[in-house]
Amino acid sequence: MNALKVIAFDADDTLWVNEPYFRETEEHFCKMLEDFLPQHSTNKELYKTEIGNLDLLGYGTKSFIISMIETAMQITQGNISHEMIQKIIDLGKEQLNKPVVLLDGIEDVLSHLHGRIRLVMATKGELMEQEAKLMKSGLDHFFHHIEIVSEKNKRSYAKLIKHLDVKPNEFLMVGNSVKSDILPVLELGGNAIHIPYHTTWEHERVDVSIEHDRFRHIEHISEVLDFIQLP
Amino acid sequence: MNALKVIAFDADDTLWVNEPYFRETEEHFCKMLEDFLPQHSTNKELYKTEIGNLDLLGYGTKSFIISMIETAMQITQGNISHEMIQKIIDLGKEQLNKPVVLLDGIEDVLSHLHGRIRLVMATKGELMEQEAKLMKSGLDHFFHHIEIVSEKNKRSYAKLIKHLDVKPNEFLMVGNSVKSDILPVLELGGNAIHIPYHTTWEHERVDVSIEHDRFRHIEHISEVLDFIQLP
Repeated sequence: MNALKVIAFDADDTLWVNEPYFRETEEHFCKMLEDFLPQHSTNKELYKTEIGNLDLLGYGTKSFIISMIETAMQITQGNISHEMIQKIIDLGKEQLNKPVVLLDGIEDVLSHLHGRIRLVMATKGELMEQEAKLMKSGLDHFFHHIEIVSEKNKRSYAKLIKHLDVKPNEFLMVGNSVKSDILPVLELGGNAIHIPYHTTWEHERVDVSIEHDRFRHIEHISEVLDFIQLP
Repeated sequence: MNALKVIAFDADDTLWVNEPYFRETEEHFCKMLEDFLPQHSTNKELYKTEIGNLDLLGYGTKSFIISMIETAMQITQGNISHEMIQKIIDLGKEQLNKPVVLLDGIEDVLSHLHGRIRLVMATKGELMEQEAKLMKSGLDHFFHHIEIVSEKNKRSYAKLIKHLDVKPNEFLMVGNSVKSDILPVLELGGNAIHIPYHTTWEHERVDVSIEHDRFRHIEHISEVLDFIQLP
């Protein structure tokens, strides 16, 4: 990976812990409805509701709250209690108030790169939620530009690369989702490094094995430095 | 207003109808709870809940749905029915699916300015919701840049003006909210035109009379053209 001018980092589960918080909330939710349906079935129903709501409500915790309420109404067939609704909203709000926990090695890598190459944070989801996490993370000062989009696809990456005024092969994306961080960037002629996280939402999972000149797979974020020749 | 290089337009209730949809949903909601509380009292309770949720949930329809559910739970004191919750979620989703209705004269003004000066859309709220409205509006092609922020304040305008690479006095903001569109821009040294809309959310209302060299008040969007000397 020569001649890089910009390195963009995904945020959720690349810079900081995210998915485990959703899974934790989900677990509470499924336990709450155990009298009505086994936990794994509730889980499946919730996923169906979430996917059904995605086009209209998008990603993030607020959509998640609404999808949990809808799922609980279906599962309880009208016998939803005041306490359940309250618990679901509380779970969602607690999730929004969770601390931001940085992933191991992130600060070292960003410190090392900062000032030597332009660093960007590129994430999808809710504007306000992601801004709040960035502020809590203390990583804000490392980034030249923050890009928050409603969906990470070829179109949104093309727009970002154009905005940054670099060529696709001067752009490197680092992230944990093959679907959102890797494939669209490679398609555009950019570089991509995949760093898997132990927990991935079903919607982000893809079964592909990637063989590509401009692609690398790493196990720890510090390995990013091995592939970058700084100017 | 000489030497302008960028004109930024607010979106909701400046380019297209927005607030009446919220008020319509709110009216349905208050009527639904009439057995528990008079409509105007429900309205007040809802506003209190919304303001209480603003820092955590932000603006937009998803927050509005969650605030309505919370308010209904308080008002019914635990006697909330399945049907009520369903109705609230349906009202919110219907609102998201509403057509985008352009305000009178908007297309003519944008057509006239397009290609002669850089046009920007600058709005606050939910990323996905505002993007969807822009797509439905058919106005996308007029804008050089779209800025969607979680809050319109001095800080976010300073960032936008810096990003556009113009001086504050080369920037004009046109919008219906004195609080969000006018005051922060004037404070930064920019120009602002206020075009009131017949319905304004309580949170956006401010009682000030503005006297300022770089400020104008208009009644119809077409008057914008009277104050602009195009290059």
